[in-house]
Amino acid sequence: MKQNFKLIVSYDGTRFFGWEHQPTTDMTIQGKLESVLTRMTGLPEDKPVTVIGAGRTDAGVHARAMTCNVLLDTDMTPDEIQAYMNQYLPEDISVNEVKLAADRFHSRFKATGKTYRYSLWYGATKPVFDRKYVAVLDKAPNLELMREAAELMTGTHDYKCFCGNPKMKKSTVRTVDSINIETKGNYIRIYFHGNGFLQNMVRIMTGTLLAVGNGEIKPSDIPAIIESKNRQNAGPTAPPHGLCLMKVDY
Amino acid sequence: MKQNFKLIVSYDGTRFFGWEHQPTTDMTIQGKLESVLTRMTGLPEDKPVTVIGAGRTDAGVHARAMTCNVLLDTDMTPDEIQAYMNQYLPEDISVNEVKLAADRFHSRFKATGKTYRYSLWYGATKPVFDRKYVAVLDKAPNLELMREAAELMTGTHDYKCFCGNPKMKKSTVRTVDSINIETKGNYIRIYFHGNGFLQNMVRIMTGTLLAVGNGEIKPSDIPAIIESKNRQNAGPTAPPHGLCLMKVDY
Repeated sequence: MKQNFKLIVSYDGTRFFGWEHQPTTDMTIQGKLESVLTRMTGLPEDKPVTVIGAGRTDAGVHARAMTCNVLLDTDMTPDEIQAYMNQYLPEDISVNEVKLAADRFHSRFKATGKTYRYSLWYGATKPVFDRKYVAVLDKAPNLELMREAAELMTGTHDYKCFCGNPKMKKSTVRTVDSINIETKGNYIRIYFHGNGFLQNMVRIMTGTLLAVGNGEIKPSDIPAIIESKNRQNAGPTAPPHGLCLMKVDY
Repeated sequence: MKQNFKLIVSYDGTRFFGWEHQPTTDMTIQGKLESVLTRMTGLPEDKPVTVIGAGRTDAGVHARAMTCNVLLDTDMTPDEIQAYMNQYLPEDISVNEVKLAADRFHSRFKATGKTYRYSLWYGATKPVFDRKYVAVLDKAPNLELMREAAELMTGTHDYKCFCGNPKMKKSTVRTVDSINIETKGNYIRIYFHGNGFLQNMVRIMTGTLLAVGNGEIKPSDIPAIIESKNRQNAGPTAPPHGLCLMKVDY
């Protein structure tokens, strides 16, 4: 009998082609999880296990706590499943938690919110030990202007201007509750919380905030940019390696 | 006129063949620093700048604050030198400080102490974002036994048993003031402070402490191991990537 398991997974996205499995490469997070679980449960390769993730992270994006769920026909306990997965997964993917979940639990449909963090670095020194997880800036951005713009980016809006998929057919309306910009030493960390995010949305919002911080866009331009629903009016897409999925709410 | 500059440098040792420059590879920390400074000061390649480091770290070992000094004939200010170096050095080497030093300052001869840290990880999860900087353990070591053994390793001794160079001709007597074992979450960090360390010494001491933590060596065996002056009696050499030079005292 199949049981529904909830998993919490961390990964360093550097080497991967994103979360979603693809027919042309086995270097995806979902693909790695599925192939380990398919082997664990002894299923034939043409009828593999399907792991459902709370969202799809882009190539190069990291996660501290991606939540997933998977239906498994196994006698193993959650702890045994975790130990097996951590033994056979590569060292850049860790399963931090395995729990039995209610049958109706669905990691994507039941998610009520997500926290993403974008990490930046500015200074005379370099982030030697953290360089794969932060984007380094050439000049100091104006944080006050960025905070003003961030405030204007929150709310419930049609965020089409911050969507990286021009062919998106479904609704591009989302609610972003908060965008907090924190600094510590040479780090600038931007925390985004919302009920969901469009493709590349956090990276485009970050690129737009940096354009504000560099004086290329005025905070007061933000409402018109959102209103325009035109990706061309927003800032550039910030690089993937600064982004990390921190938490999924249920 | 040549002036003496003191530099503080961080590096991720993963890609490098250690600190010391070598004729057969340009992938050493000293070699990278010297070639950037040789270019900066316009010296011919056959008369390069010499950078003196406080110590020689092994291949794969990291440093948060290696102190060096270098005689340079330049009109550049310390800040300009730092900016130039950080621009041209690879992203895994950072110059954190450049200062004019007294002519008599010598980063190796004037060093009075060093702090090294060895980082270990034990748990059901994996150190995804820190995996290049910690050694992962298969089972939980007994920290109480390790602390007992660590205490017996401190003092002023002939540490030949912990020396990785069997042909060492100079004195192998050193003073190790303290070995502190700290834990935080899944991390076990061992801090070593002493007036100097022999080749591989911190890694062999760590391997010996782990052998104690696994029950292979008793804490009460430590004095006899030191007394024996025989490398064979000590534990294995812990892998380089867990080790980091934290600070040099003057």
